[in-house]
Amino acid sequence: MYLDVINSPDDLKKLNVEELSDLAGEIRAAMMNRLSNIGGHFGSNFGIVEATIAMHYVFNSPVDKIVFDVSHQCYPHKILTGRKHGYLDNNSFDKVSGFTNPDESEHDMFNIGHTSTSVSLALGLARGRDLRKAEGNVIAVIGDGSLSGGEAFEGLDCAAEFEGNFIIVVNDNDMSIAENHGGIYKNLRKLRESNGMCECNLFRAMGLDYIYVANGNDIPSLIKAFEEVRDITHPIVVHINTLKGKGYSYATENKEEWHWHSPFDVETGKNRYTSSGESYDGITNEYLMAKMKNDEKVTVVTASLPTNIGFTEDKRREAGRQFIDVGIAEEHAIAFVSGIAKNGAKPVFATHSTFMQRTFDQLSHDLCINKSPATILVNTASVYGMNDIGHLGIYDIPLISNIPEIVYLAPTNAEEYLAMLEWSIEQTAHPVAIRMPCGKVMHTDKEVDKDYSDLNRYRMDMSGCDVAIIGLGNFYHIGKEVAEAIRKKTGIAPTLINPRYITGLDKEMLESLKKNHKTVITLEDGILDGGFGQKIASFYGPSDMKVYNYGLKKEFVDRYDVSELLDENGITVDKILSDIL
Amino acid sequence: MYLDVINSPDDLKKLNVEELSDLAGEIRAAMMNRLSNIGGHFGSNFGIVEATIAMHYVFNSPVDKIVFDVSHQCYPHKILTGRKHGYLDNNSFDKVSGFTNPDESEHDMFNIGHTSTSVSLALGLARGRDLRKAEGNVIAVIGDGSLSGGEAFEGLDCAAEFEGNFIIVVNDNDMSIAENHGGIYKNLRKLRESNGMCECNLFRAMGLDYIYVANGNDIPSLIKAFEEVRDITHPIVVHINTLKGKGYSYATENKEEWHWHSPFDVETGKNRYTSSGESYDGITNEYLMAKMKNDEKVTVVTASLPTNIGFTEDKRREAGRQFIDVGIAEEHAIAFVSGIAKNGAKPVFATHSTFMQRTFDQLSHDLCINKSPATILVNTASVYGMNDIGHLGIYDIPLISNIPEIVYLAPTNAEEYLAMLEWSIEQTAHPVAIRMPCGKVMHTDKEVDKDYSDLNRYRMDMSGCDVAIIGLGNFYHIGKEVAEAIRKKTGIAPTLINPRYITGLDKEMLESLKKNHKTVITLEDGILDGGFGQKIASFYGPSDMKVYNYGLKKEFVDRYDVSELLDENGITVDKILSDIL
Repeated sequence: MYLDVINSPDDLKKLNVEELSDLAGEIRAAMMNRLSNIGGHFGSNFGIVEATIAMHYVFNSPVDKIVFDVSHQCYPHKILTGRKHGYLDNNSFDKVSGFTNPDESEHDMFNIGHTSTSVSLALGLARGRDLRKAEGNVIAVIGDGSLSGGEAFEGLDCAAEFEGNFIIVVNDNDMSIAENHGGIYKNLRKLRESNGMCECNLFRAMGLDYIYVANGNDIPSLIKAFEEVRDITHPIVVHINTLKGKGYSYATENKEEWHWHSPFDVETGKNRYTSSGESYDGITNEYLMAKMKNDEKVTVVTASLPTNIGFTEDKRREAGRQFIDVGIAEEHAIAFVSGIAKNGAKPVFATHSTFMQRTFDQLSHDLCINKSPATILVNTASVYGMNDIGHLGIYDIPLISNIPEIVYLAPTNAEEYLAMLEWSIEQTAHPVAIRMPCGKVMHTDKEVDKDYSDLNRYRMDMSGCDVAIIGLGNFYHIGKEVAEAIRKKTGIAPTLINPRYITGLDKEMLESLKKNHKTVITLEDGILDGGFGQKIASFYGPSDMKVYNYGLKKEFVDRYDVSELLDENGITVDKILSDIL
Repeated sequence: MYLDVINSPDDLKKLNVEELSDLAGEIRAAMMNRLSNIGGHFGSNFGIVEATIAMHYVFNSPVDKIVFDVSHQCYPHKILTGRKHGYLDNNSFDKVSGFTNPDESEHDMFNIGHTSTSVSLALGLARGRDLRKAEGNVIAVIGDGSLSGGEAFEGLDCAAEFEGNFIIVVNDNDMSIAENHGGIYKNLRKLRESNGMCECNLFRAMGLDYIYVANGNDIPSLIKAFEEVRDITHPIVVHINTLKGKGYSYATENKEEWHWHSPFDVETGKNRYTSSGESYDGITNEYLMAKMKNDEKVTVVTASLPTNIGFTEDKRREAGRQFIDVGIAEEHAIAFVSGIAKNGAKPVFATHSTFMQRTFDQLSHDLCINKSPATILVNTASVYGMNDIGHLGIYDIPLISNIPEIVYLAPTNAEEYLAMLEWSIEQTAHPVAIRMPCGKVMHTDKEVDKDYSDLNRYRMDMSGCDVAIIGLGNFYHIGKEVAEAIRKKTGIAPTLINPRYITGLDKEMLESLKKNHKTVITLEDGILDGGFGQKIASFYGPSDMKVYNYGLKKEFVDRYDVSELLDENGITVDKILSDIL
């Protein structure tokens, strides 16, 4: 096996073209081993094997620097730059992350998990090189799907004015996560169909030089193209047409399903583990499908992650014109739903907590200043969500809840969640964000409120004394356990509160607690800094009330274990008990 | 005067083409009256007079809906839609804002102050119209300068897939705030030079239909073009070439200076009031010019607001390749400086607090996860900064300070500010943001620290007892006054602390205060929610310390008076004294 002797790109350069082709097969087999066992981004990585080999054959990493957008196409690069054990050795999977990572290798310049950033980051490297009067090529690799994000466009526009070596490899596999959306994809098609020759060329229209490689899975063509642009003294786009999922028929036949895939059986392509029973995504989808049928003014908007809330291809078809995926374009999505709401319809936009980060200004300026009554669903906003450093869902409370005018709600179970969603869609007074519950679906047999227009009314679920526990969203359930433990230990029942509103204080209820409580505990599923509990602490600041805030430390964590992280942050029933008693 | 009888667009429709041309002159005179007296956005508004007349002549607002990007070209629209008194009557200037504003008129759909949002917002209106099965044209107006912002690109890309009436008027005056930057402007030039006929067309490359109006200041041509696209059933770009500042020679000769202008003498074009003495912008510029001369690795990056930190045309020329303006592209700017820092050079990026909002994800993901040691200057981050609802500088503490890894500093005077800036540029361990002081330049004769690498060390400027005052940044000076007042009133000297670090607590010092203090006061120049003081309150939550947090309520305020706003928020020496004594 050639891979046996390849520990860095230098080793690769010793092979001839035929051997490189065999190497491509070995890389696919290595990726197959990892992904069939632990899952990961499949399609784009299988498509970019040959291009990665050709890049490392022609360029001289790490003197030449390659930046892979969003990291969804970096696996072959990782295999060729000293991290093959993470693919070949089943005991080493967890030693290698699914993203580029400078802590792992000098061949990675950045830790990247969000799309559309590679051009700007790499352009910075090129600029740094020139300020230092250093040498070397800088190469940004970006997929066609990532091109629709505003940051990528800003980067390309600025790159066109750059005076120096800069190479942009556009890896065009004609797919985003799902199908591409946006006018630029018509132009990419024209470019593919005209072998890169059509006069109206998006990249040239942006002021960039351009070459096209029709077969982006052919190593000799790729080597030729990269040799042509190596040491070029101006910016150029190398547009390569690759096949997403190449080398595995299930993946090429169903590209959306195989963008990312959970562990699977290689023979059949079937999932190794079937996810069981209900999920908040499924509940959301079921509700929205029914709601859209009953009301033609309701519309659902997603940003390249339709299945995030269950909008698989069949559901999208069924929803028809009431469903819109805008592609990777979160900024547009928020302004768009603001406009929809402003003109009397009922939009719901959903994305992951981590991608809501892209929309702070749009939430504030386009949505909230204008008080547009759109509904925003914030998904996987939890310590129980994605756990890699690039996709953490623990920062959205400070992000969203400190913006004026928005009502940010934290439901604690399915019934409450759906009641809030229904209320939000039908009301016209506020922009509303809902922090979708995360993890095991919880139910209640108690009646939940239907109307949330009397803002910032907390719900006291157990009225007790001495200690009051305010458990926000997912952490309400930890609060309930703490309450039970206190009752058992002291014989005195504490008060348990479901605050529901992240964006405001129920001053009346908080004031009333002063009568027969000495201690207030807050619990929130996210970082403490800038969050919910600190507002409660501030409220009680001038009083005798003792306040204990529980939540996560402000830090970037990577591939954490939930129980360990909670324990490190003192969020266990035992630790809380020992703090307050 | 025709304007006398024009109270709505309906009145305009009664005039003939010649009369419309006279009306254009009257509108310019009205704008001249307002702007020469109170200042405002000059160039784009003077350029778009004819196009606005033609739009209101052809379309039927408010059934047809026009959305003006960033509002810098909405003055003629405001004059024609019932708000001429804000331009003609010197006693009514303050009754009409400088931005579109739905509270003023049904002809304004949104309150807008940031660029690059009109296409997405308007596309939402069009979508809302169709979901409601309603009628009418929707028109987005966007300037060429705003096109470089990522949100605009995302909007255009999505607009190309829209199935229904949607008109995008690109008002191309060949200028951003300063000159345009980016590859797309080469294409706009080609389009102008080819009368819209060149094959390689940015808008067509994005999948949009397109027509060109060579003389965007000629009412008949404009009426013809708008009549052609009225009731069109698909999206189309109407690219019009206008003259920025048209009708006033000083403005057409010096477009950058006249983008926005302070009150001036109409005869001479000279400022009515000369700004006196030193400013933090000027100090910053002087420092950076010298620094760049001494160190070729230092580079300054701005996003279309170079004069924000004193980089006027001559300074930009002098700085040469060490200065880069990226155009309106804040997202790119942050990723770009992250890359520059990662590759060993020393970048400084500066923009207003309100525009930093566009970069939350880039700060977190591109900069901070990667610990790139770039320097970010946050300008006009203060209640003393811009005071209109679209440009408030009071939200950046929750925005920036809750992101892990960044060091956000709040200097209290010029010497401390420059020491922090010097330290930040030279250190390589952290991404650093500095909240530029705002308002009157303060000086100290005390020595300031040079090294800030021992993070989160507060500085105790006066050691006293009972009460400790922690005054952050600009509000340190209020804290000092409070300290003095307490000493006078009680005879007991309180403790006064300059915390300097917004992003962390000096736990040792805070702990030590418990010994001989009963009360801690925090003061911050921004909203309280998610900010600095609430972290202090949380720290002392389980203790006996009484904590009073002073800062602004989380709300959107508009055209406020600083003293009134501070008074409303209880931030006066008297009120603070009466709270705590």
